[in-house]
Amino acid sequence: MKKSLLFSALLSVAVPSFATNSDGVDPIKSDPVLQGWMQGQPPAADKVIRKQDNSFYHFPQLRWSFAHWSELQPTSSIWQGTSLPSKLTVKINTKIKQLPFETMDGKSSLTVEKALVNTYTDSILVMHKGNVVFEDYYGVMTPQTRHIAWSVTKSVFGILAATLIQEGQLDPNAKVTQYIPELKNSGFADATVQQVLDMQTGVKFSENYADPKAEIWDYVKAGSLFPQPENYKGPQGFYNYAKTVTSAQKPGSVFNYQTVNADVAGWLIRRVTNQSVSKVLSERVWQKLGVERDAYISLDSEGNEFAGGGLNLTTRDMARFGEMIRLDGQYNGQTIIPKAAIDDIKQGGDKALFAKAGYQTLPGWSYRDLWWVSHDDHGVFAARGVHGQTIYIDPKAETVIVRFASQPVAANSKSDPVLLPMYRAITNYLM
Amino acid sequence: MKKSLLFSALLSVAVPSFATNSDGVDPIKSDPVLQGWMQGQPPAADKVIRKQDNSFYHFPQLRWSFAHWSELQPTSSIWQGTSLPSKLTVKINTKIKQLPFETMDGKSSLTVEKALVNTYTDSILVMHKGNVVFEDYYGVMTPQTRHIAWSVTKSVFGILAATLIQEGQLDPNAKVTQYIPELKNSGFADATVQQVLDMQTGVKFSENYADPKAEIWDYVKAGSLFPQPENYKGPQGFYNYAKTVTSAQKPGSVFNYQTVNADVAGWLIRRVTNQSVSKVLSERVWQKLGVERDAYISLDSEGNEFAGGGLNLTTRDMARFGEMIRLDGQYNGQTIIPKAAIDDIKQGGDKALFAKAGYQTLPGWSYRDLWWVSHDDHGVFAARGVHGQTIYIDPKAETVIVRFASQPVAANSKSDPVLLPMYRAITNYLM
Repeated sequence: MKKSLLFSALLSVAVPSFATNSDGVDPIKSDPVLQGWMQGQPPAADKVIRKQDNSFYHFPQLRWSFAHWSELQPTSSIWQGTSLPSKLTVKINTKIKQLPFETMDGKSSLTVEKALVNTYTDSILVMHKGNVVFEDYYGVMTPQTRHIAWSVTKSVFGILAATLIQEGQLDPNAKVTQYIPELKNSGFADATVQQVLDMQTGVKFSENYADPKAEIWDYVKAGSLFPQPENYKGPQGFYNYAKTVTSAQKPGSVFNYQTVNADVAGWLIRRVTNQSVSKVLSERVWQKLGVERDAYISLDSEGNEFAGGGLNLTTRDMARFGEMIRLDGQYNGQTIIPKAAIDDIKQGGDKALFAKAGYQTLPGWSYRDLWWVSHDDHGVFAARGVHGQTIYIDPKAETVIVRFASQPVAANSKSDPVLLPMYRAITNYLM
Repeated sequence: MKKSLLFSALLSVAVPSFATNSDGVDPIKSDPVLQGWMQGQPPAADKVIRKQDNSFYHFPQLRWSFAHWSELQPTSSIWQGTSLPSKLTVKINTKIKQLPFETMDGKSSLTVEKALVNTYTDSILVMHKGNVVFEDYYGVMTPQTRHIAWSVTKSVFGILAATLIQEGQLDPNAKVTQYIPELKNSGFADATVQQVLDMQTGVKFSENYADPKAEIWDYVKAGSLFPQPENYKGPQGFYNYAKTVTSAQKPGSVFNYQTVNADVAGWLIRRVTNQSVSKVLSERVWQKLGVERDAYISLDSEGNEFAGGGLNLTTRDMARFGEMIRLDGQYNGQTIIPKAAIDDIKQGGDKALFAKAGYQTLPGWSYRDLWWVSHDDHGVFAARGVHGQTIYIDPKAETVIVRFASQPVAANSKSDPVLLPMYRAITNYLM
């Protein structure tokens, strides 16, 4: 893959700087509408965004791409069903925009409005006690636009895996290979289902986006998210890649955030349900939530869904999903997810193993069933995707915050110092 | 492009033979569910269908591909809007399946049921006086499945172009270059808007699917429908290809069915509306019809919609569209298309020029505004797409027949000898 601005930004940034925009990539000037990407009938040659030259993943082009994923990649629909969308009661609180808060280091003071712009927000929606109290769209985003959720996808399928565990269809203590014998010669051979869901398989797979030799870049090439080079000889598709992964550490001895685990989780869901993950998600969740639009998911060249990060959905539908999780699985007049599956997430994962992974912006957190768990005094837990995507659930404040973004840097450690205090300021205010 | 079974079939077939299936490609055995294409979690290696090796367009794989286009190609949605689907009254007439009829040559007798199987039907829906009287799905098709419509797409955008003409936004007698100066050095330089819509531009572009050197194969490569070879140096995208087309005959002197004309029509629609054709179709038609699902359309690598053949939609939504055309543009309680635009199609195009093109199964027909017009005693006119797609409108019988198919041969002259008499048998019976 070509070295992009993204990598340059990653490599050059040591200290979070969204508070002051000192990273030299202006969040206002990078607005994709202002920049004119893919505008015009047809767009001017220098305003075209393509998959084949990787320009879709360069910054600032990705500010357009993240909201137009199906226009660049093969995708499969998650059908919404035939019923009308569930009603969202909108009671906008205009004061939220002006709420002041201090960044994590205590050195800067910002308003919510300013922070949202500074962190390259594409959309945000805050639900409090089931009412929409704040909702905003930026750049090319509209309420109808489906935005890529990146690793928020993991959490959506994590809750489905946890559900299958509660139903007894999936044994958390069984070896992965009991369901997927194809992995018996891989680094997954000794890992359990639960270790896959908790990112404790110990396989050799670096997700350090700043390292061009990290396995994550081979992985997205295998999955055809990035074009394969002409002489590409590597594994074809996510599952064939997973078969080649080796073991680095003993399963259960380490927390290591690795996207390949989430695709193995997707594979497990498919194997035990004998359905595509799109169909499982449609039948169990999407058709019941009363969503406004089909979601869709990115596919590899073999038609396998990218359960590790390929889900695209609207802001409001992500809010419905988050609110359903906050309400212990009850939504739109029915039980969608069993409470026990959500409780299993809320209890969290191994805090000691998590601490060793060195997430400086997430002290005291853990990881369970493909969700991030804060263990804070509000019981916050979250789905988190690169470039700033999130479903932030605060049970104590009865609040769900969902957000799509296209920050230039993949790692969320870059925006956490602004966003985590901002989310807390909002929930504190609403309580 | 690799030579496929499809080409072999094309080259070997001189006489239509669907009546007896003597073409050696069994329509029952080629059922994609029976064959197991893309089934399994994941599918077995020899059951995977890919874009990159062109297997998606080989027969019998295309019987799966035509119903899963977004899983192979980049696509853009045609949003259905927020309202509920318009109600379809279903009054199935079980006798239709057993209707007997004779093939065009009078040599074979078939029932509708048998003919539908023999011609590789994927779905069929017959509306009579607004009621669904016959509806059936085969292979991988369901009422929710969106199937590629191929050149039925042209007619959908043809009616939009005719609408813009009625509204005075597009001058049928103006040169194409008045709207698209980019074509001034191409074979379109002297052609008018109406000549584009009537396939009378006289540009050099062969659509003979049996000729591997026909321009249509360069065109689909330029549009990235088929993978571009590693050393591809040709034009990138449909519009850049159109710029390179030269003139073969004087505009207006010839009817020559050429897909590039339809994409120039799409370009015209985009230019005068300053919107994507997806958005025009969504706002003017899809959001008003009360469809059941978003449609979607295939894109080239520059994000241009394939107005020449890339629309994918459900069977029922295609029926709604056809019924709206039959009802002079009135549907779901509103005017969707002006009657004058539909009248312009019904009057037909130049029959003498059409006759010279040698369509043996379409004697006395003509072509107007990207629609096929029979000039028969029922006033039949139709949208027609390769491999058997159609919207067949019989005003006198107050009947609309829509059909998706995946016959092994692209050219509809192969199945017309069975299907055109079958459609007439159905409408005669319903009258």
